[in-house]
Amino acid sequence: MLRMLGRILQLEALLLVVPVLVAFVYGESPRPFLLTLVPLLIVGTALARLKARADFFTREGFAVVGLIWLALCLTGALPFWFSGEFATFWDCLFEITSGFTTSGATILPDIERLSRGILFWRSFSSWVGGMGILLFTLAFLPKVGGRNQILVQAEMPGPLATKLVPKTVQSTQILYIMYIALTIIEIFAFSIAGMPFFDAVVSTFASICTGGFAIWNASFAAYNTACQIIAIVFMVLGSLNFALFFLTVSGRIREALKSDELRFFLLTAGICSALIFFNILPLYHSPGAALKDAVFQVVSVQSTSGFSTTDYNLWPTFSKSILVLLMFVGGCSGSTAGSIKCGRLLLMFRCARRSILRLSHPRAVKVVKLDGKIVDENALNTVFAFFICFCILLAVGTVAGTLDGAGLVTAFTTSLGAITNVGPGLDMVGPMGNFAFYSGPTKAFLSFMMVVGRLEIFPILLLFQPSVWRKR
Amino acid sequence: MLRMLGRILQLEALLLVVPVLVAFVYGESPRPFLLTLVPLLIVGTALARLKARADFFTREGFAVVGLIWLALCLTGALPFWFSGEFATFWDCLFEITSGFTTSGATILPDIERLSRGILFWRSFSSWVGGMGILLFTLAFLPKVGGRNQILVQAEMPGPLATKLVPKTVQSTQILYIMYIALTIIEIFAFSIAGMPFFDAVVSTFASICTGGFAIWNASFAAYNTACQIIAIVFMVLGSLNFALFFLTVSGRIREALKSDELRFFLLTAGICSALIFFNILPLYHSPGAALKDAVFQVVSVQSTSGFSTTDYNLWPTFSKSILVLLMFVGGCSGSTAGSIKCGRLLLMFRCARRSILRLSHPRAVKVVKLDGKIVDENALNTVFAFFICFCILLAVGTVAGTLDGAGLVTAFTTSLGAITNVGPGLDMVGPMGNFAFYSGPTKAFLSFMMVVGRLEIFPILLLFQPSVWRKR
Repeated sequence: MLRMLGRILQLEALLLVVPVLVAFVYGESPRPFLLTLVPLLIVGTALARLKARADFFTREGFAVVGLIWLALCLTGALPFWFSGEFATFWDCLFEITSGFTTSGATILPDIERLSRGILFWRSFSSWVGGMGILLFTLAFLPKVGGRNQILVQAEMPGPLATKLVPKTVQSTQILYIMYIALTIIEIFAFSIAGMPFFDAVVSTFASICTGGFAIWNASFAAYNTACQIIAIVFMVLGSLNFALFFLTVSGRIREALKSDELRFFLLTAGICSALIFFNILPLYHSPGAALKDAVFQVVSVQSTSGFSTTDYNLWPTFSKSILVLLMFVGGCSGSTAGSIKCGRLLLMFRCARRSILRLSHPRAVKVVKLDGKIVDENALNTVFAFFICFCILLAVGTVAGTLDGAGLVTAFTTSLGAITNVGPGLDMVGPMGNFAFYSGPTKAFLSFMMVVGRLEIFPILLLFQPSVWRKR
Repeated sequence: MLRMLGRILQLEALLLVVPVLVAFVYGESPRPFLLTLVPLLIVGTALARLKARADFFTREGFAVVGLIWLALCLTGALPFWFSGEFATFWDCLFEITSGFTTSGATILPDIERLSRGILFWRSFSSWVGGMGILLFTLAFLPKVGGRNQILVQAEMPGPLATKLVPKTVQSTQILYIMYIALTIIEIFAFSIAGMPFFDAVVSTFASICTGGFAIWNASFAAYNTACQIIAIVFMVLGSLNFALFFLTVSGRIREALKSDELRFFLLTAGICSALIFFNILPLYHSPGAALKDAVFQVVSVQSTSGFSTTDYNLWPTFSKSILVLLMFVGGCSGSTAGSIKCGRLLLMFRCARRSILRLSHPRAVKVVKLDGKIVDENALNTVFAFFICFCILLAVGTVAGTLDGAGLVTAFTTSLGAITNVGPGLDMVGPMGNFAFYSGPTKAFLSFMMVVGRLEIFPILLLFQPSVWRKR
């Protein structure tokens, strides 16, 4: 376990080389990054030299994942802390956790004040977190030993883990190749649309991972319409199952288009965009601008990004309620998006329908299918368990949020934004607000909620079950 | 089916005799009641003379239940309409549905303006609805024929229907005897505590059924502390499984006290009361008054009554968030309370725990138990299906509410209050507010939501499944 952790810390030290270079290019001091990089490299190398255990089980696998995320967020916060540009360490921790978990919530009232190196590290963290930190490690440092599939399972989003090719390491490498390809294409597209190079890079990092960190206080409203449309396209791509891209690249595009989840995602986004469009139309001079803002906001929320092109706090309550519902939906399994996800929702709806039909035809034994395949009853139970835990955590988070004096809407959308990794919510934590007013412990708790949400709840909850630790 | 309906209409005509008498006693005109009573009696008797079908299945059973509730609410609204004390027929429909479903939500800005007969009919309707209208019919007019158990199942609250004695009709009679006994005791208790007789009767009708209709604009704040404490006791009794009273009367009190649901209910109420007590303490001069208000409000919301002794809209957000969570909880199965209910929540929590434990011990096949008995997997699936449908309806209701210009908190708690049969919510629909500002169609939709919630969702949803009607 510690050896694995050592590897990850080494990797993080490597990642920190990039912001060091960025700081050099823009003539800023690389001190905050070097102060973190050097100790990380020493500790990481020392840990990595430990002997590896031959095998570990789910229990230990989940413990490793929990430990790694804790270590990553704590060490990742150090550059922010050393830069002196943040008020408290809680703030640094919240901001980097928001990055690694691709939430995009910020405690910064004035983002534009930050130095380029820090802005880069912020967006880069969410790009790395987008595909999963363990996946990243497996793809680039495959020789960690142990049963990798368990680790991947703990970090992979969605009810059903899909492997592209039989070998786990190869699967993760293919995933990352596609991820990097999309990133390069998006940087290119933004540059053509007139974005400065630095903006193009950090906006790409924050959008393809469905993170949502902006480098301007106005978020995406700072860019032209072409850039906003490009962002819509890549947020959608980031919310789709990457296995579908693999199918498309392999020439099996028809198979990819038949995905139930894909259809559900596009249908939801389409209907919600239409509803919001008609609702906000009277507020706009041109239908085109209303349509663009409606689609951008729907895609931004459903993909759990959290960018904005306008202050939707000023929209009618009807549109706001649709956005809140979309926060529950999220993207597809195997994407970079968070929340409950289309696959789980589809399975839950189908189960509910089956139970209702059973009342009138009690003897009809029916199965629930996804993409034409029968879904195991145990998997269905796990989906329900996920939803129950999601609701409980959401409730606890809401009640906790009210202790800092937030209103009900603020507290609820804060909790929802954290656990779904959307980031911003409504009212005080809306697109023009931020999370600065929360107290230190609440910020730590919200950071915890973001990690729980990113790891799809179970790995972390399992760590809190006493019976898991009792027998060794 | 029609014969059954005829019987129910006859029964309703009989019930209307009571407000006629009340109107006479207080020297008011019995015209609104007589105008409804006479046609009901004629139509009812005509329908009841039809030949009975030997048997019917779940499908028809559910259809009967849906039809009966529709007919009841439409005809029950007539006395309100004929009285001329209501503005629109939507208002009458909303008010009587709120009564029969024991919600206690009102569209009246000034309740005290109403005549005694109308006030009586309002509270009486919720008393009749408390134990179930079909149960009422079965208990007092047993000779309706057909498979009664199916009808009872459709109206009985909770995940697992319990029969007290083998015969359905006898079971319902025992239930009603206990219900009437409690009613008489409560009227007596209120009278001793100093309530005027009319107030004692209508307050009893509205509290033992966990309805929540008050006859003063200030709700229960109009009465002294002793009356408020009596109301707490009887709201708790109304939220417990009536089977437990049967066990207690039969001398098996130990068995009754072992009920998981009972413990869960009392634990939830206790913890929430304590949390709210400490939170609101600074607002009060004496701890006693704070404790009384905290307990009253917790019990009122958890029992899905919706009475108030104070304007909890002015409480801190923390306390309000606890009350909103309690709206989701509700009472026990087999009680007069609505919402998700303790039994379902317990089963869902236990299922979620099992799924988490399975991750670390995949080969451990575990069962979920309630009161020491193993719960069938199909029943668990039905519980989850219930919860999913509950969430979907809650979401649809919230979005619909925003169309009338309500804020998010108002729209959400309106929808939640309707489907859980709590009645009032927060903000504009809070204890000092009312539902008058909603448009006619929204009031009709909320009435529909209340009936769906009262019948525990499935019977009504089943009617909307096309495949149920396809083959005959």
